[in-house]
Amino acid sequence: MKNKLHFNTPLDSSNSSVFENIQKEQESIGYYHLPEHNIASILSYCETIPCDIESIAVIGIGGSSLGAKAVYEFIKPVENLKRKLYFFESTDPINIKGILCEIDLDKTHFLVISKSGTTVETFAIYKYILSLQPNPKHYTFITDPKSDLEKYANSIDATILHLPRHVGGRFSVLSVVGLVPLALCGIDIKALLFGASSIKKSFFEQGYLHDILLKKSLFYAKNHAQYHINCLFAYSESLKYFCEWYVQLWGESLGKKQRSSAFNVGLTPIGLIGPKDQHSFLQLIMEGTRDKSVTFIQIEDFQDEIKIPNTTLPHLEELDSLNNLTFSQLINMQCNSVMEALQAEENIPLDTISIPKIDAQNIGALIFYYELLTSLVGELMNVDTYNQPGVEAAKIILKKKLKALS
Amino acid sequence: MKNKLHFNTPLDSSNSSVFENIQKEQESIGYYHLPEHNIASILSYCETIPCDIESIAVIGIGGSSLGAKAVYEFIKPVENLKRKLYFFESTDPINIKGILCEIDLDKTHFLVISKSGTTVETFAIYKYILSLQPNPKHYTFITDPKSDLEKYANSIDATILHLPRHVGGRFSVLSVVGLVPLALCGIDIKALLFGASSIKKSFFEQGYLHDILLKKSLFYAKNHAQYHINCLFAYSESLKYFCEWYVQLWGESLGKKQRSSAFNVGLTPIGLIGPKDQHSFLQLIMEGTRDKSVTFIQIEDFQDEIKIPNTTLPHLEELDSLNNLTFSQLINMQCNSVMEALQAEENIPLDTISIPKIDAQNIGALIFYYELLTSLVGELMNVDTYNQPGVEAAKIILKKKLKALS
Repeated sequence: MKNKLHFNTPLDSSNSSVFENIQKEQESIGYYHLPEHNIASILSYCETIPCDIESIAVIGIGGSSLGAKAVYEFIKPVENLKRKLYFFESTDPINIKGILCEIDLDKTHFLVISKSGTTVETFAIYKYILSLQPNPKHYTFITDPKSDLEKYANSIDATILHLPRHVGGRFSVLSVVGLVPLALCGIDIKALLFGASSIKKSFFEQGYLHDILLKKSLFYAKNHAQYHINCLFAYSESLKYFCEWYVQLWGESLGKKQRSSAFNVGLTPIGLIGPKDQHSFLQLIMEGTRDKSVTFIQIEDFQDEIKIPNTTLPHLEELDSLNNLTFSQLINMQCNSVMEALQAEENIPLDTISIPKIDAQNIGALIFYYELLTSLVGELMNVDTYNQPGVEAAKIILKKKLKALS
Repeated sequence: MKNKLHFNTPLDSSNSSVFENIQKEQESIGYYHLPEHNIASILSYCETIPCDIESIAVIGIGGSSLGAKAVYEFIKPVENLKRKLYFFESTDPINIKGILCEIDLDKTHFLVISKSGTTVETFAIYKYILSLQPNPKHYTFITDPKSDLEKYANSIDATILHLPRHVGGRFSVLSVVGLVPLALCGIDIKALLFGASSIKKSFFEQGYLHDILLKKSLFYAKNHAQYHINCLFAYSESLKYFCEWYVQLWGESLGKKQRSSAFNVGLTPIGLIGPKDQHSFLQLIMEGTRDKSVTFIQIEDFQDEIKIPNTTLPHLEELDSLNNLTFSQLINMQCNSVMEALQAEENIPLDTISIPKIDAQNIGALIFYYELLTSLVGELMNVDTYNQPGVEAAKIILKKKLKALS
């Protein structure tokens, strides 16, 4: 993975103090340790799932599904996976019925994932699916130790896996939450963690990402009042769900009341996919208010090369310049063209990330890069990166509404 | 369709002048007339496509695909459609190969849609597909009259359909651009236009939407410096691609240099899907900077009702309050809970749109509602709503890069 910043920002004293704080944070925040954690128990758990299980279905929402979905949808188009992965992550009845039409209940293993053990969406869906597939052998429960969900799972003699301590939902993709569904589909989770580990080392052991991540986070935090929208412009359809994961990570971590002042601050994440969004959001970046930073993500080599044939269409000869290009070349030329067009404008901070190819190691690297960046920006913006107090109010209102019904 | 504003804004003199301007604009802007245009030629064209054609594939990007995709993905889960619809809208080689794996080339009819007739993505993909399926009978071309694409299509004796005059790409879904692919799949395009027409009448003939649309647009335009992010929070997975269509419509129309001052202005659109994004973006709305308005979209009745069974899970008895609810009730209670939680906060302008059910008429209404709102806000913000000069620079750079290769 390469990352090049196209904006200038000096390193200053806040950089060394933020680095110290992040180093210290490792003692209390669990996700930093995930790249090196022992996955033997996950791999042996996977061996217990029968070969005739063709599909894995996650029943979970938010941090319980977005990470695994990002990795699965990235890798699925290029690898011949062992099992299909589905996500029940909405209470939309049409959506639930749609997924049920695609799976064979007797050949599906369900992963019920809820950190707290009481997520409304998850249990509404679980109750419904349980009425269709009552065999406890078809379920594994992933939750915090000693949650009520663990007690329930014990009572029906189902398998339980625990989330590691001090790992929040949106930082949990490299724990059992993401690794179990991915490993069950045959995705190389060792390579995924190796990719994450390489980024971690590069940052903490003063490798090339050390200065880059510090400079980028300092720029975002210092200028958050002006550049409060951060666009991720990824040039591959396979990164669509990575963008959704990014939106949760960034928005839920950095949209907060500040620790010191209780002042509302926030950086708004936007996920874009190129070249499609050149025909949509680009106009707004080019000519709209100067409140957006843009990070381009490119895949250097799509490997499975297809070429534009060497044909001339009568009256459309000007399109002959496309001939003999691979689509991989074309999409990257498109990305570079948009980047150059934006560089010619003033006040649009840009940077580019490029990854060599589509595989588990590279998505692992991207994930850890963004987790680290989020931690750094959160620290510099003086917010609690790891909580989400703002989502509680709606949950309490829903509970009241439900109580009023019964 | 119902729309309720939860913020107060007085009607003032700019309201009557904007209404007059929009009435005048109908003379020069074509989309206003689409709800009542004659679709007989589209329906008879559809009859010419053989019955053994099982799939329709649009080769088009941006305004040439987003509208049809929004309608198709909304209706597909609830109706048994006659044909499947695919969209080639990316130069990502993995994506192109993925779609090609799903279709049978001999049972697919391709709609090549390009207003200008020279869209790079569209022709790169078309050239590739033409090498696999060289029979011109499998192609229909939709473009502006007298474009080079029309000349080319004539030279191979393929069918050509014309875009109506003065209709820009992102306002073209109710023209041949959207209606042809949708009608070929068996979607009721008459009902789609009827829904659009009902909104048009309600606005122009002083029905209940007249004041609402004027108030809402005035509020957005007047407060654009503070509330410059407009979230659409739709409580149904089926509205996911409607949100993408909205993002293009809003961002590309309203992100502009102002006509008078050449000052960069813009309203940033965000599409959210509930309840999933309660676990993602909601925290940022609740506790982040007060720069966001939120419009909720609810579907009153999902019709295909499934119920949460009346079961008690040991140790999880508190979840019994969910029992016997339909998912339709639950998802709408979730939406209402989030809305009430946001209402309790200060400075988050909210409104709610509810549509009775998922069908062509209702999505037609939603589409026209948003087109009208965009026109009104653009007029009040003093931008040219219908151009997109900012996307040209990248196109010119790409052309230079391509030329340098050959």
